[in-house]
Amino acid sequence: MAAAALDELKRQGSGFTVVRYTVPGIKDLPVASRILFEEQKCDIVIALGMVGRLPVDKDCALVTDYGLQLVQAQAGRHILGVMVHEDEAKDDAELAFLFDRRAREHAINCYDLLFRPEELRKRAGTGQREGFADAGPVRVK
Amino acid sequence: MAAAALDELKRQGSGFTVVRYTVPGIKDLPVASRILFEEQKCDIVIALGMVGRLPVDKDCALVTDYGLQLVQAQAGRHILGVMVHEDEAKDDAELAFLFDRRAREHAINCYDLLFRPEELRKRAGTGQREGFADAGPVRVK
Amino acid sequence: MAAAALDELKRQGSGFTVVRYTVPGIKDLPVASRILFEEQKCDIVIALGMVGRLPVDKDCALVTDYGLQLVQAQAGRHILGVMVHEDEAKDDAELAFLFDRRAREHAINCYDLLFRPEELRKRAGTGQREGFADAGPVRVK
Amino acid sequence: MAAAALDELKRQGSGFTVVRYTVPGIKDLPVASRILFEEQKCDIVIALGMVGRLPVDKDCALVTDYGLQLVQAQAGRHILGVMVHEDEAKDDAELAFLFDRRAREHAINCYDLLFRPEELRKRAGTGQREGFADAGPVRVK
Amino acid sequence: MAAAALDELKRQGSGFTVVRYTVPGIKDLPVASRILFEEQKCDIVIALGMVGRLPVDKDCALVTDYGLQLVQAQAGRHILGVMVHEDEAKDDAELAFLFDRRAREHAINCYDLLFRPEELRKRAGTGQREGFADAGPVRVK
Repeated sequence: MAAAALDELKRQGSGFTVVRYTVPGIKDLPVASRILFEEQKCDIVIALGMVGRLPVDKDCALVTDYGLQLVQAQAGRHILGVMVHEDEAKDDAELAFLFDRRAREHAINCYDLLFRPEELRKRAGTGQREGFADAGPVRVK
Repeated sequence: MAAAALDELKRQGSGFTVVRYTVPGIKDLPVASRILFEEQKCDIVIALGMVGRLPVDKDCALVTDYGLQLVQAQAGRHILGVMVHEDEAKDDAELAFLFDRRAREHAINCYDLLFRPEELRKRAGTGQREGFADAGPVRVK
Repeated sequence: MAAAALDELKRQGSGFTVVRYTVPGIKDLPVASRILFEEQKCDIVIALGMVGRLPVDKDCALVTDYGLQLVQAQAGRHILGVMVHEDEAKDDAELAFLFDRRAREHAINCYDLLFRPEELRKRAGTGQREGFADAGPVRVK
Repeated sequence: MAAAALDELKRQGSGFTVVRYTVPGIKDLPVASRILFEEQKCDIVIALGMVGRLPVDKDCALVTDYGLQLVQAQAGRHILGVMVHEDEAKDDAELAFLFDRRAREHAINCYDLLFRPEELRKRAGTGQREGFADAGPVRVK
Repeated sequence: MAAAALDELKRQGSGFTVVRYTVPGIKDLPVASRILFEEQKCDIVIALGMVGRLPVDKDCALVTDYGLQLVQAQAGRHILGVMVHEDEAKDDAELAFLFDRRAREHAINCYDLLFRPEELRKRAGTGQREGFADAGPVRVK
């Protein structure tokens, strides 16, 4: 996932440096983000992880999300959580596709938050969901 | 949604400036609110977002709400969360109606918190639910 | 509810001033409490609200409770949350009865925390549940 | 429960003073613990409470636990939560038995954390569950 | 569990000192970790515990995880939570096996976070799940 995100960031433009920090599991992402903000002076974090199929994995994801909120509130900087749930895909090929697509979409969001906030506003309310096909904007008949 | 909220705020009165900040997803709203409080010196935030139909979307909404509590407790300033759940409406027209109505009602609440707290007290306990018809106050027979 | 709480507080004694702060919804209670502690120098807060019948309302109540814990931990002062759930009562008359009774019981608790802590200790472990009839203390046969 | 905990603490040894603080409900325990840490300079808190049978009571317990985590993280001091759930016992006699036993076991833990940390290490991993009979350590056949 | 973790840490290398802190239950792990960070100047914590079979035990685990997030966000240092759920194993032998294996895997992660971050990156995305057999990396056909 990290490779796809990195590739997409470079496609969008330049003017940034990337620091990678690998952690053992998704629950380690929040404190790693804090370390990236504090010690590495990062301006934004893309937190990538995979969520398993078991109920205990879902609890992990919830706790991780909670920790990401804590660290963001503390740092006043964005963390874009890119979680792919194993049960979103029917096989490994689809999972790999989802990984790639979602990482790229969040990389674009990351770039826009830093350098092109006006692009985010244009896409707001168009109902884009990461991965698979978009659902399209609300149309009043 | 943002357009309806803005329009309604202007209808209520003046004496304020609006700063818009678009984020990729609802989970990005809490830290965006903190940035609006800290860097843009905002006095109050209206956080608008849509919540999808999937269980994972409901978890997103819960985590967002949690983050909004964190940021409010930290800043000592109000964030009015305006979330519309996709499954509240039977079609896009109804969804658009709900968006508009709820955004306007929260815009009024926002204006009242800042400029007309006595109006909020008048409406307290009258059981108004945002969107659709109000349920009416408790009547002792 | 606020009226019943106020009336009961006055029945218990004097030596205090009451500051009212009305908010649009229950999720706004935690930050309002923080504002009452910080800006109005309040020593304690009674947070009154009604919780609807829908699952989304239950989530609201949970998030509110969470926020109330955050603000209390921060301020080191008590917030007595008085939540009445719509589905606790079979009709409006019962709901009004519950509102009144629970608000009064918490007003007494509030007064005792401030002025008569020994009264709280006397009632401890007697299994009093707010509203309806009390369940009575544990009796070893 | 408080009486059993106090009695057991005295049986274990001396060198400590006990400060009691009674609160209206379990959700008031976290902030009371913070007050005991800050204003009464307590080194540790035993938080005793009963959890009712209703779903709303279970939510209360969860929110309380959450608040206890918040206050402990803030203070860097232990709070031993002693919660007895009404539905753990089939009648009042069993409930009273559980109250007494669990309060005593936590009082011993409390004493050990302060004065005999080596005792805690000896008991670690022996699968002791408070109240009822212990389950015994893992045995590899 | 602690013995297996310690043994594995020593197998990986040297240059560290281990401080042990035993607590009565898993919910005491977060504040103990904070004490280890603050008073013992630890750089990382391995928090080991067992989670019972009852719903109340699952809530305990969730609250513990939440507390661990709080303390990590505060300290900016990692806590590796090693929780074994009683119902993951069919008997005591399997439980003991899981304890040992998972403790060792997290000990390696711990060592790598401190001394060999490049090793973590190599293993990233290979879908290793602690205990039992690994599931293997995603293969695009």
